[in-house]
Amino acid sequence: MEGSGVVSVEPGQARIGLVGTGVMGRHMAGHILSAGYALHVHTRSRDKAVAVLEAGAVWADTPEDLAQACEVILTIVGYPADVEKVYFGEKGLLGALRPGTVLVDMTTSSPELAQRIAASAGARGGHALDAPVSGGDRGAREATLSIMVGGADAAFRRVKPILEVLGKTIVHHGPSGAGQHCKMSNQIAVAASTVGVCEALAYAQSAGLDAQALLRSISTGAAGSWTLSNLAPRILEGDFSPGFYVKHMVKDLRLAVDAAQAVGVTVPSLEVHLRLFEELASAGFPDAGTHALFKSYDKSGGQLK
Amino acid sequence: MEGSGVVSVEPGQARIGLVGTGVMGRHMAGHILSAGYALHVHTRSRDKAVAVLEAGAVWADTPEDLAQACEVILTIVGYPADVEKVYFGEKGLLGALRPGTVLVDMTTSSPELAQRIAASAGARGGHALDAPVSGGDRGAREATLSIMVGGADAAFRRVKPILEVLGKTIVHHGPSGAGQHCKMSNQIAVAASTVGVCEALAYAQSAGLDAQALLRSISTGAAGSWTLSNLAPRILEGDFSPGFYVKHMVKDLRLAVDAAQAVGVTVPSLEVHLRLFEELASAGFPDAGTHALFKSYDKSGGQLK
Repeated sequence: MEGSGVVSVEPGQARIGLVGTGVMGRHMAGHILSAGYALHVHTRSRDKAVAVLEAGAVWADTPEDLAQACEVILTIVGYPADVEKVYFGEKGLLGALRPGTVLVDMTTSSPELAQRIAASAGARGGHALDAPVSGGDRGAREATLSIMVGGADAAFRRVKPILEVLGKTIVHHGPSGAGQHCKMSNQIAVAASTVGVCEALAYAQSAGLDAQALLRSISTGAAGSWTLSNLAPRILEGDFSPGFYVKHMVKDLRLAVDAAQAVGVTVPSLEVHLRLFEELASAGFPDAGTHALFKSYDKSGGQLK
Repeated sequence: MEGSGVVSVEPGQARIGLVGTGVMGRHMAGHILSAGYALHVHTRSRDKAVAVLEAGAVWADTPEDLAQACEVILTIVGYPADVEKVYFGEKGLLGALRPGTVLVDMTTSSPELAQRIAASAGARGGHALDAPVSGGDRGAREATLSIMVGGADAAFRRVKPILEVLGKTIVHHGPSGAGQHCKMSNQIAVAASTVGVCEALAYAQSAGLDAQALLRSISTGAAGSWTLSNLAPRILEGDFSPGFYVKHMVKDLRLAVDAAQAVGVTVPSLEVHLRLFEELASAGFPDAGTHALFKSYDKSGGQLK
């Protein structure tokens, strides 16, 4: 395996870097430390990393510092623009990349950007994987994430033990960008399910049905879904706190619409779903959970209530 | 209970009528006979009732004959126009309705038509329930249907033992039309789920992903659904035989769009889904399964292949 130019990452022998200690990164850091790896972290505001530093991680002032210190570097930040900056920006990862280092971007981002990062890393003798996740906050905390990986097989096999510390379902989908494509496909289905459940519940409410009785009738048949089982009850309780933010759904669906165009498939339903979530964000609900879309339906024709 | 004017329907004491011996009605007839009820049947073409007659049912030449012979009459036919004819047409059920008889329409039909039938039955001293089902052919065969009931409570309670012979989840949703409203809500969610899965798989195919690997990554998370578990594998096998016909989805979604307008809720996603299934039917696939929608996506922009 050393012949592949990929640096070994056995626990205790490898220094892992992590950029991003938000709701996902924080839990991931904990699992990496618990597994016995040395962990170096960087994030935009050091105060967001305090808990992780207290747990034993080493602070790095810049992504460049991480690139100089670590053999494997995970990134999980917010938007593709953040990924761009961490990798290609001043004091970014790629400028200081050492041969053999494996970069793993776990942000949901564009397949095209993943391919650019991989090309740039390869030109410097390094390796880059795209490895977005699903499972959310809870999946990160319980290490049950689904991790969808794109990139070279040797690099994937080398970091797989680390990914197994973070998630339960780890699948290699193909070359660079394939992990992001898989996540896009996931989000297309998630959005359709969320909109469908919200529209079905809004119809039922307008028709005067009792929603609990409705769920008894429809939950175990062909309408059954994770969304119907998990988000419909929260809608009925009026709990619109985020499992998954509206603003992140907007980001993901914009990426998916662009990616669909790039691969040449028409996605009329996805386009409507993007518009509905964009309208919900514009109406003042970017930080609500996606199931708050229910609130955008009412008898007067789409006004929030 | 006799005070409510609803005729008793204990097994062995009641004659049940059934209009419709199609893929659903045929199985239902078997369960009714097995439960010990006397069963009288009518259907447009007597040759479609032969198996049921050989199993012990009595033939009726017209719906009117059933109305004269039976205390409870179930109907499960194709389209609202068929329901209209069976109930309001020449030699229809309502013209010959005897006081106390309970009519139960299990066809997926319009809430408004259900209300008209109930009003007409009530004017003749009879009772009518709307009781559409979900669970399909298999649910009918295994008596595991979900039955969604609208109409007066006394009539519901009286026929509930019969419905329990036919299904597993029997829920009374409210006054006449409420059963149909519940079914509409179910179909809104089913259509969204079906379109979402087809669009996600089509995107993945265009992006060059391996579909089996995709399903491993996304089936157990927020994208999980009955559709993803049951129809996606059939799509991947190229098996587009009907669990549920495209033409029936078109019928149901047209009813749902009309009903949504009637109750005053906007349903932009449903409207797109109706259009997609209408286009699929027009393209020559009315008798395919709804998951054949997958075939309408391709890299050239929606041509069937």
